[in-house]
Amino acid sequence: MTPIGLVRVEAEEVPRNWRRSELEGMLVIDDEYSEGLADIEPGQRIVVIFNFHRSPEFSAELLRQTPPHTGRQTGIFSICSPVRPNPVGMSVLEVLEVEGGTVRVRGLDMLDGTPILDIKPYIADRILVPDSHR
Amino acid sequence: MTPIGLVRVEAEEVPRNWRRSELEGMLVIDDEYSEGLADIEPGQRIVVIFNFHRSPEFSAELLRQTPPHTGRQTGIFSICSPVRPNPVGMSVLEVLEVEGGTVRVRGLDMLDGTPILDIKPYIADRILVPDSHR
Repeated sequence: MTPIGLVRVEAEEVPRNWRRSELEGMLVIDDEYSEGLADIEPGQRIVVIFNFHRSPEFSAELLRQTPPHTGRQTGIFSICSPVRPNPVGMSVLEVLEVEGGTVRVRGLDMLDGTPILDIKPYIADRILVPDSHR
Repeated sequence: MTPIGLVRVEAEEVPRNWRRSELEGMLVIDDEYSEGLADIEPGQRIVVIFNFHRSPEFSAELLRQTPPHTGRQTGIFSICSPVRPNPVGMSVLEVLEVEGGTVRVRGLDMLDGTPILDIKPYIADRILVPDSHR
């Protein structure tokens, strides 16, 4: 996997989860890939797949973790912890502006410098939103 | 990145997108990671991150593609094509049953043998479902 770009954000600390974040910042996409941003428009929501580049290495005792906000020991595949078997994150962000290779977004929960692996269209779940589809 | 398991499905062809799929199959998670499945329960929806292991290599002329169902040339980051700068896929699946390291799911759009990289809790978007959170 090769990053397609980086997250740029000024905050030192970021919210635990995109769902609770109003933090704004930039996705700066490499020139080589910026043509692929065609058709991304302000107001849309996008899925961003990224690398938890600051996470320590995973080990078996981390298969269950206790998130601070629940205090309950939980299987890694049921929580959003950045310390995972593969250090891959996923956030749903709101697009504010697209200019060249830069996408201004709201809802960041990634640290400054986070490598971006992919951007995908956000597809609403049919159970939640039966009439939406792409 | 190291796969945590594989998709098992009997169909030769799979639906284009999980949103339109009723296909059932199994996520077979390696023994080494199966403890992390604790807390995944029937009826839940999960996010599965996987490797498009049969995709050809990406090249610049694929930054815009024309999906057959729209006939409209579109930037790669606005479509779900399996041929992407990084061959990472994401699907939202419904959990039918969990037994040991095997998760029976509905909604598959992955081929048999697809390497699974991660499983995450499905978090509903606050704009769609303002009251849901985890």
